Amino acid sequence: MRRPSLTLLAASLLLASTVACAADTTIPAAAVKTAEQLRDKAMHDDTGYRIAESLTTEVGQRLAGSPADKRGVEWAIAKFRELGFDKVYTEPVTYPKWVRHSESGAIVSPFPQSLALTSLGYSPGTPKGGLTAQVVRFASLDALKNADPARVKGKIVYIGFRMQRHKDGHDYGMGSAIRTQGPVIAQAKGAAGFLLRSAGTDPESRTPHAGVTGFRDPAKTIPAAALSNPDADQLERVLAYDKPVTVKLDLDCGIEGEYTGANVIGEITGAKYPDQVVAIGGHLDSWDLGTGAIDDAAGVAIAMGAAKLIHDLPQRPDRTIRVIAFANEEMGLWGGRAYAEKHADEVGKFQLGTESDFGSGRIWRMSASVKPQARGAIEQIAKVLAPIGVAYDAKRPGGGGSDLSQMHGKGMAALSLTQDGTYYFDWHHTANDTFDKIDPKDLAQNVAVYAAFSYMAAQADGDFGSAPGAFADDGAGD
Amino acid sequence: MRRPSLTLLAASLLLASTVACAADTTIPAAAVKTAEQLRDKAMHDDTGYRIAESLTTEVGQRLAGSPADKRGVEWAIAKFRELGFDKVYTEPVTYPKWVRHSESGAIVSPFPQSLALTSLGYSPGTPKGGLTAQVVRFASLDALKNADPARVKGKIVYIGFRMQRHKDGHDYGMGSAIRTQGPVIAQAKGAAGFLLRSAGTDPESRTPHAGVTGFRDPAKTIPAAALSNPDADQLERVLAYDKPVTVKLDLDCGIEGEYTGANVIGEITGAKYPDQVVAIGGHLDSWDLGTGAIDDAAGVAIAMGAAKLIHDLPQRPDRTIRVIAFANEEMGLWGGRAYAEKHADEVGKFQLGTESDFGSGRIWRMSASVKPQARGAIEQIAKVLAPIGVAYDAKRPGGGGSDLSQMHGKGMAALSLTQDGTYYFDWHHTANDTFDKIDPKDLAQNVAVYAAFSYMAAQADGDFGSAPGAFADDGAGD
Repeated sequence: MRRPSLTLLAASLLLASTVACAADTTIPAAAVKTAEQLRDKAMHDDTGYRIAESLTTEVGQRLAGSPADKRGVEWAIAKFRELGFDKVYTEPVTYPKWVRHSESGAIVSPFPQSLALTSLGYSPGTPKGGLTAQVVRFASLDALKNADPARVKGKIVYIGFRMQRHKDGHDYGMGSAIRTQGPVIAQAKGAAGFLLRSAGTDPESRTPHAGVTGFRDPAKTIPAAALSNPDADQLERVLAYDKPVTVKLDLDCGIEGEYTGANVIGEITGAKYPDQVVAIGGHLDSWDLGTGAIDDAAGVAIAMGAAKLIHDLPQRPDRTIRVIAFANEEMGLWGGRAYAEKHADEVGKFQLGTESDFGSGRIWRMSASVKPQARGAIEQIAKVLAPIGVAYDAKRPGGGGSDLSQMHGKGMAALSLTQDGTYYFDWHHTANDTFDKIDPKDLAQNVAVYAAFSYMAAQADGDFGSAPGAFADDGAGD
Repeated sequence: MRRPSLTLLAASLLLASTVACAADTTIPAAAVKTAEQLRDKAMHDDTGYRIAESLTTEVGQRLAGSPADKRGVEWAIAKFRELGFDKVYTEPVTYPKWVRHSESGAIVSPFPQSLALTSLGYSPGTPKGGLTAQVVRFASLDALKNADPARVKGKIVYIGFRMQRHKDGHDYGMGSAIRTQGPVIAQAKGAAGFLLRSAGTDPESRTPHAGVTGFRDPAKTIPAAALSNPDADQLERVLAYDKPVTVKLDLDCGIEGEYTGANVIGEITGAKYPDQVVAIGGHLDSWDLGTGAIDDAAGVAIAMGAAKLIHDLPQRPDRTIRVIAFANEEMGLWGGRAYAEKHADEVGKFQLGTESDFGSGRIWRMSASVKPQARGAIEQIAKVLAPIGVAYDAKRPGGGGSDLSQMHGKGMAALSLTQDGTYYFDWHHTANDTFDKIDPKDLAQNVAVYAAFSYMAAQADGDFGSAPGAFADDGAGD
């Protein structure tokens, strides 16, 4: 197909931005006004904050497949009902059950001392009595990729990438790449074990960061763990003596069969188009070291809290507000993938969607993947969100967040609502992910954004372009 | 004895401050100049920093009585020799050996979840299978003191005093009082166990603070542990539901016989008065959760580093510089008390002394307990220290620091060199007390202060008033 000339493209863009055509999606003025009221109310409302408090206090950690996972599901059902959602139901999600029993590590020689570490998701345990081997350090994932297997064989591979704090948390790209790919590459070269500097930014706290590895084939696994930043510093200081460094890992963990958990869903039923849905959510599971507050009680609370505010309006919205508390996001988007598989055929009925899963910092940027005729409606949403600090970036796609990225992949129109993640990786996946890390005012701003956009999307005249296979080339998955 | 009249006292003070009498102690001008050079060199020297790095890296934690205690002693002997000290020796110190094997805790009901806690020094272990009991909370130590034993009997007492950060760390007074007295009072009222909010100021990190209790009589002990600040917050949130809260403690720890460790001593021998000593030091032992960096590798490094700079002068000082790395300060000044008992008779030969045991923050205040005729010499020292941020407070006594307070109690003239402790209690006694918490420039300032004052005291014409029983009423022990 011949590409349209730039002149034609510019002309049509100009037209789109200045004239609302009959086919354009718009938000009625009354809906904009109500959204502004929702926004302003939410900024001073603690509904979301109290939901996060309730989940982290009454359930605590919610490792997928653990007894607390079940308690989390029960909590979510009860909380949706308590908040008055019109419809509450679950959908099963089945995944491998990974269990952490115990873990310890130590430098054996030349300077014996313990190390604060944590096993990574899907890591197998070490042999009974532990694994003791020499450490070989690589400067980067690429250095490991290029390494002669003879250097690696029988050793514990260590990579010490140090993440820095950034508002958009972009260092996590490399941090998580080392965590997911590192053990797999090391195993292929004959390593006995794998250690990394935590994919986290707290330089001071000896709270290692958990997280999943890229292991899928149980035959291709080696014990893998993360050192806290101060412990990684210490190991590097010891390595600098240029003597052989031997480490012992004693990890009792591994996959123990399958588990069937659940996505828990609550709905505020649309008055006019009940089968058309605005989909928002967070994930219900968490890592087990903290209480899963910023990751992701916050996301669940933001979505539940926003829907509750819409619920409390005098009238039900035109379309359904669907809040999804996803199962097992942490070990590979199991809830999000199951959801997308099940609902792929209905993707056209998903008006717009996005998930909150980047802590509780303020939302500072919005972007969208929608059909061109819905850009004007997105700009209307942006105008309502601007006074509370959200800048609209028309050039970026909207990916839908972690689990809902899977529905976006099926063709769901989606937003990205980017939170300030400067300190997110200080606490995320660590023992320090606890309720005290949530700032109530920041959380309220998130609820305000979700309430306002969800309501406007629900009231829109027209849709945002969801259709099977839509947005496949928007770059959101890159 | 009749007290001197105020007029006479004022007149004599005036005289002392304006005219140097024959009996007054003074620092010769050449010594002041050399001290200034030592000070300026030390500010840009990393000797102390490298000593702290060496101890925390090569030995790590040094819990009194543990295998690492012995390695710490060996390290100190080797380090004194490596630095070229003229004389290196040890003196035995015997104390109860308290051992920590394992520890865990959990809220059993109404909301099951684990708690990050650590057993307190001298705490006995819980019965096999753990101790499960209801929690009873008290607002303060006084509230516990006044409590009806019927409220306490068979329960786990919890006190949640929250320390705030202060430059002089004064909240530790109450924090440590609860830790030492709380378990004893609770036991006397029939409690089954004792929990406190950590005596520490990090609000975010789930790294509980260890520390000693006031238990001395093995028949009067109950299991006692500290919760991290976020865990204390969590327990308090759970208690706020106004349901009975049951906690399980599983502590495997306790006193296992006696151990004989050592104070390790290194000397730069005085050229003129070798048997007269300036005594400085820190303590070699540490709690076992971190690597004992700010508490108290820093103190050992400051004293060793200062003496090393004096050692490197072209000539030995007039008096001996004695650096003492004390044994088992943490569980009750065992090294300091043994030292003072052994050397009480020689107290008159201790020219001046003080110990560094408050982290590695900059020294901002100096005070002294010396004879009136040595005030002028103290002012000379103060003048040399003023340019690097040390203010002289003539109204306060000088207590000599933790272990050396015991020699001061015997009559040793002593300084207090007060460090900035704003963040000290964030890390002290926790897993986070690691080398990265030491700022090299701050540590260098400490070394500069110790080098300059030690040298001036060693070169003084005259003494500072050490004598058996001197300074008994100076208030330093209050």
